Amino acid sequence: MHEINFWISVVATIAFAVTGVLAIADRGVDIFGVMVLGVITAIGGGTIRDIILGVPSFWSETQMYVWLALAASIATFVAESFFTQPQIHRTMLYIDGFGAALFGIAGLDKAWNLNFGLPVAPVILGVVTAIGGGLLRDVLAGRKTLLMSHELYAIPVTLGCCLYGLVLQFFPQYTVQASVICIAIIFGIRVAAIHWDLRVPKLFITQTR
Amino acid sequence: MHEINFWISVVATIAFAVTGVLAIADRGVDIFGVMVLGVITAIGGGTIRDIILGVPSFWSETQMYVWLALAASIATFVAESFFTQPQIHRTMLYIDGFGAALFGIAGLDKAWNLNFGLPVAPVILGVVTAIGGGLLRDVLAGRKTLLMSHELYAIPVTLGCCLYGLVLQFFPQYTVQASVICIAIIFGIRVAAIHWDLRVPKLFITQTR
Amino acid sequence: MHEINFWISVVATIAFAVTGVLAIADRGVDIFGVMVLGVITAIGGGTIRDIILGVPSFWSETQMYVWLALAASIATFVAESFFTQPQIHRTMLYIDGFGAALFGIAGLDKAWNLNFGLPVAPVILGVVTAIGGGLLRDVLAGRKTLLMSHELYAIPVTLGCCLYGLVLQFFPQYTVQASVICIAIIFGIRVAAIHWDLRVPKLFITQTR
Repeated sequence: MHEINFWISVVATIAFAVTGVLAIADRGVDIFGVMVLGVITAIGGGTIRDIILGVPSFWSETQMYVWLALAASIATFVAESFFTQPQIHRTMLYIDGFGAALFGIAGLDKAWNLNFGLPVAPVILGVVTAIGGGLLRDVLAGRKTLLMSHELYAIPVTLGCCLYGLVLQFFPQYTVQASVICIAIIFGIRVAAIHWDLRVPKLFITQTR
Repeated sequence: MHEINFWISVVATIAFAVTGVLAIADRGVDIFGVMVLGVITAIGGGTIRDIILGVPSFWSETQMYVWLALAASIATFVAESFFTQPQIHRTMLYIDGFGAALFGIAGLDKAWNLNFGLPVAPVILGVVTAIGGGLLRDVLAGRKTLLMSHELYAIPVTLGCCLYGLVLQFFPQYTVQASVICIAIIFGIRVAAIHWDLRVPKLFITQTR
Repeated sequence: MHEINFWISVVATIAFAVTGVLAIADRGVDIFGVMVLGVITAIGGGTIRDIILGVPSFWSETQMYVWLALAASIATFVAESFFTQPQIHRTMLYIDGFGAALFGIAGLDKAWNLNFGLPVAPVILGVVTAIGGGLLRDVLAGRKTLLMSHELYAIPVTLGCCLYGLVLQFFPQYTVQASVICIAIIFGIRVAAIHWDLRVPKLFITQTR
């Protein structure tokens, strides 16, 4: 289990960095900006979570995540034409969606195990872990954040984290099963959203006056 | 006194969330963005203050604030046409101004009681408590922040916090009276600014070249 | 040595505030925005570093930095026409470059001495100390951040910090010499970049599609 978790988070970190760089590549970013923004996309959410939790940033203890994100960002810059192929880009988006699911649930778990403001705060911090890095990247790159884009990204993460929080609160004996199921739910909705290009229906959007 | 404080901060949290959502509603935000940005407007400033203070975020201990902000944000989304009526919107702005006054002074108090960098740091953290949430919302929503808008919002808060800090430093025996008076000053200037649409005079604005 | 360090950081704080204000002056900022953004430019990077380190913000202990930045910001506002003279502005940019070099190396030192995630995290925090304040200012002012501007600013800082980190890791006996040399390297590249208006070559920029 631990072994699996490790490899999943390796793959997810790489996917976060790659999709993070691809999201901003069309704005003409230099290699340094690519490295910084790729790393921020990959480790930014967990950093905000750890700051709010008052614990040392996870990457100060496991530096591998910085190196992975850095290498993935540089590789994306060098092989931009490879990664921007529609099929490859889409595959990265799927892995990125899986990463968001995993990081969200893992972030919630970390806060829950630290007994931080149960039960509401861990759910918030799970969502922050999954989307915080992307928000930081978009703000620093002058890009519309996903809070304004009507994408189905943060919504499945939030649904899955709420569900997982409910199970931890009321049925703690099913923690392991719930984590797998909630990751599957988040990933499933995200895959559907990418595949059919689903967005938030107009009914749930404020009217532009 | 404690009782009053509690109810004031309940009302102020709701007002922050409502005005926070109204500020971005014209940009076409979905219900999820509304919830996130409403909550961030309401609790973001206090969160930054607590991070700088190195204490757990206030909402991890009193989760009610999250629920209040969430409920107020959703209500604003659902009843958008109600809240955007000029008279109601204006009333919310007044309550929001009162909330900013209260949160600013309360934030200063918290830092002061923790003996954090007296006397300058508490004044800064009071201002951060009052305006930080709105700044985060504007940045995440891609909106001009109030630092650039020439509104009389942060200025009265800062004046009131400076005055309150001076009293705490030199006349600590008048703390209670000073807090009431400083809240009144901030709120009074803010009411005048809303009522007469006062802005920072041109003399105090850098010349656009 | 300690004496010199003190005076250098005084001058650097002032230069950060002045160049910070000049960078946004053309957007029509009021005196309050000038004060806030000037102070944030000067102390924001160190604040983010201290938050990630989990130590009290440096300005809560040495409040002088806040006063210096505040005074420099107000002076820049009042004497805008003086500071915007090409020769003066350029001089301030040179001092600012020196400040970035100094703050980067000093920030790295602080993290290293706290044993925070050696050897990678201190290098990251050195860079954050040098450029974090400018990033915050640009985001709050709605300005393109330097990560997107192809300027040679963050790059020399990062090179110098990496080099210094390598020396601290492998040749700790040369710490003092290395700090002077790395500051000189950062400053030298920055001076060259300002003087000849050097930018990141096109080869190292993603293609805008």
